[in-house]
Amino acid sequence: MNTVLAGWERLCEGSAVARFIDINLRGIGQVMFQDNPLTGALFLLAVAWGSIAGGVPAVVIGGVVAVMVATLTAQWLHVDPKALRAGLYGYNGVLVGLALPTFLAPGPMLWVYVVLGAAVSVVAMLAIANAVKPWGVSALTFPFVLITWLLLLASYGFGAIEGTGLPQGGVVGVAVPIESNPLHLIDFLGSALHSISQVFLKGSAVTAILLVAGLAVSSIPAALFAVLGALIAVVFAHLFGAESDLITGGLLGFSPVLTAIALGSVFYSPSPRVVAYAVLGTIFTVVVQAALNTALIPFAIPTLTAPFVIASWLFLLPRQYFEPTGSSDGAA
Amino acid sequence: MNTVLAGWERLCEGSAVARFIDINLRGIGQVMFQDNPLTGALFLLAVAWGSIAGGVPAVVIGGVVAVMVATLTAQWLHVDPKALRAGLYGYNGVLVGLALPTFLAPGPMLWVYVVLGAAVSVVAMLAIANAVKPWGVSALTFPFVLITWLLLLASYGFGAIEGTGLPQGGVVGVAVPIESNPLHLIDFLGSALHSISQVFLKGSAVTAILLVAGLAVSSIPAALFAVLGALIAVVFAHLFGAESDLITGGLLGFSPVLTAIALGSVFYSPSPRVVAYAVLGTIFTVVVQAALNTALIPFAIPTLTAPFVIASWLFLLPRQYFEPTGSSDGAA
Amino acid sequence: MNTVLAGWERLCEGSAVARFIDINLRGIGQVMFQDNPLTGALFLLAVAWGSIAGGVPAVVIGGVVAVMVATLTAQWLHVDPKALRAGLYGYNGVLVGLALPTFLAPGPMLWVYVVLGAAVSVVAMLAIANAVKPWGVSALTFPFVLITWLLLLASYGFGAIEGTGLPQGGVVGVAVPIESNPLHLIDFLGSALHSISQVFLKGSAVTAILLVAGLAVSSIPAALFAVLGALIAVVFAHLFGAESDLITGGLLGFSPVLTAIALGSVFYSPSPRVVAYAVLGTIFTVVVQAALNTALIPFAIPTLTAPFVIASWLFLLPRQYFEPTGSSDGAA
Repeated sequence: MNTVLAGWERLCEGSAVARFIDINLRGIGQVMFQDNPLTGALFLLAVAWGSIAGGVPAVVIGGVVAVMVATLTAQWLHVDPKALRAGLYGYNGVLVGLALPTFLAPGPMLWVYVVLGAAVSVVAMLAIANAVKPWGVSALTFPFVLITWLLLLASYGFGAIEGTGLPQGGVVGVAVPIESNPLHLIDFLGSALHSISQVFLKGSAVTAILLVAGLAVSSIPAALFAVLGALIAVVFAHLFGAESDLITGGLLGFSPVLTAIALGSVFYSPSPRVVAYAVLGTIFTVVVQAALNTALIPFAIPTLTAPFVIASWLFLLPRQYFEPTGSSDGAA
Repeated sequence: MNTVLAGWERLCEGSAVARFIDINLRGIGQVMFQDNPLTGALFLLAVAWGSIAGGVPAVVIGGVVAVMVATLTAQWLHVDPKALRAGLYGYNGVLVGLALPTFLAPGPMLWVYVVLGAAVSVVAMLAIANAVKPWGVSALTFPFVLITWLLLLASYGFGAIEGTGLPQGGVVGVAVPIESNPLHLIDFLGSALHSISQVFLKGSAVTAILLVAGLAVSSIPAALFAVLGALIAVVFAHLFGAESDLITGGLLGFSPVLTAIALGSVFYSPSPRVVAYAVLGTIFTVVVQAALNTALIPFAIPTLTAPFVIASWLFLLPRQYFEPTGSSDGAA
Repeated sequence: MNTVLAGWERLCEGSAVARFIDINLRGIGQVMFQDNPLTGALFLLAVAWGSIAGGVPAVVIGGVVAVMVATLTAQWLHVDPKALRAGLYGYNGVLVGLALPTFLAPGPMLWVYVVLGAAVSVVAMLAIANAVKPWGVSALTFPFVLITWLLLLASYGFGAIEGTGLPQGGVVGVAVPIESNPLHLIDFLGSALHSISQVFLKGSAVTAILLVAGLAVSSIPAALFAVLGALIAVVFAHLFGAESDLITGGLLGFSPVLTAIALGSVFYSPSPRVVAYAVLGTIFTVVVQAALNTALIPFAIPTLTAPFVIASWLFLLPRQYFEPTGSSDGAA
């Protein structure tokens, strides 16, 4: 693996085209925090499978177009070259490009939306990374969430863009009985796999396996925390009596998967205490996911990865208490 | 009083059990900013009365369980010992533990919720205290508000947790005629007392008197500002023509009570100008309370103490203009 | 022009009354970022025309009362004298004073609201300016937006204040067909002018022309960017298929106008790259305006200038990438 990557890196040093491809692949890999072009290639394969098998090729095309627009925008804005090469200006773009064709009907204005959203995702990344810098946390996928929410909300006011895949709006608390059935083992495994693939907005076991493979070539701990996060999410969502269709579709698990990777791999010295903390954060992400599912009902838009962002910021802000160098002057 | 407290402190120095009790009592006292175990004991008595007389003992049990879980979580996270001993990691937990049984139906999963919420309230306290540190303001009860909102919103998606005490969701502006009757003197006094007791989610005159006593043993000005805040809230809510039932239930006054204590006791040198500023902030908290009552209608959750947090942050951020050492390089 | 202004400045140095008038006029000018009393006078004339011609003199009276209350409050709070003289504590007040009589029915409590809102707008200005100082951006009109939103939301709970001009609440996504007709050239010009005048909550071509004149006497680039912003907004709103009535009323264009002035005049060295960036930000403001139109449906309140604030903060936070002295240590 390392020989392949080293050869590829030499190629990139000599070829602007290869470098451009490399940056975009790393951008795709950064959706799950991996600065690795092979991971990005496997993720792209995973998304292409889910998109084409699901009969919506526009989704993967949107993702590819958007990540390239984002990279070009970042170059135009003269961003820090090191961060650019690590794919840090691409991962929000690729998610915008996957999300818009997932929720909006095809048409020429959809592609104007994809290009505009991808370009502005870079501005949002620069803005939010600046905004959170004083706290030593990173922007996570909040730029993607913010820009996509704005574009989807705006679609309700634009006749040229139709939100065919958007959730139905409504009033919270008007009784909708929850269908919570006992989970069989086979549902359980499927639910966990779909929780992983829904990080890229797809419910597909093949996609999930390719994503885990993509994580594993870059970081075994990341792959393990992804699987752990999915299992925790399915168990606790079921325990809380959540709607079975949401669980088996992976729709309560994708944010916990991301939280588990983020909390599990960001701390300096893994320890039982750190694992317990990451597990607590992952469980709480299930609550945040269910909470945002409710809170967004009046707005008729999906949560995207906002539950992951909220829970991870909450659990990452106090990380000084887990770091060897952290001084103990705390909250008060 | 001081002799009793000094004796108790000596006992705590020699006994881990007494120290643990002390920390939890101070945590209860910090709900109204008092680092004093006797205040905490009186507050606990006030809540126990309101809870048991109201036929919902689960509320005070929830509060006691939660404050202890919060303290243990804080110890596990190795927080700053001085802040821990002052009860700063307990007050959000006790409020979470009082609120959940107030709004949710009894049952085993309610207690999972109480323990989870109390533990995460400490993480939220560390996170938010870190987040607001650059501005020199404190976290106030925002950790409680945030975690409880998330847990309550999530309950709409969880079949195992039932929100029997939650408000009805609806659409803002669909005409609900406001019943605003002239207040008699007796209503006026009851309204003011209920405004104080609703800080602990109870409408009870006995609870209110015990709370004021608890404040007075620690700080006479705090007790005076609490009463002043309650009176201002009732007068202005009535002047604005608010619903009489909300006024007499104390539901428009608990946030102004907290604002009055916070603004009245945080400034260095009390002066007519400071008192006028605190009064302005207290009046505006009535507006913020009514505003959040409206804004949360679509979400079918209660405001909790969010109006106090918003108004107090707004009025505390410019506090440099009231401090002798404050340099005059201001806003622009 | 400069001779007139120099003579006026000499007058102000000798007369407290003239200075007070000067500060208030500059406050009105700062609504569009101009520290210039003549601009303020022309803006006041523009608003007076729109208000009186529209049959709602209470609007301009509210604006005048509010800007004076704001200035007096700022003096009472001992704010920085330089910022005070530049009108930085007046522009939020004048907007509060214009907005409240626009959306609420006349009556004695409306004027209590105007005075309270204007006074608290200064506290909010100090608070938010403090809050955003670490990022080197300014408070923009967020104090106005925040305080007015709170006052309008609260009006639904107050029987003594009636929201006759507030939008109807509803559920997002319940089909409302969008009426998007081809724009004729005459509509196009009217739409652009109304986009400018709606910055002061009026749809009036005369008001718009007076506002552009007011900008031009202070800054030709600001006037040009205002017109450019209006044209971009109308073209792109139409391209996206927005409701024609909203476009011709200027209701999708006032935030883009403000974004265009803010982004176009804040950067050190104008260049084609800066203009392209400002144009991108202005286009995106149209999306943010449509998004907030949707997002506020459940709350039954108007967006005010929130879309401008959100889009401008997003595009101003990364401004280091456009400044000669900006170091390149960026986001990551």
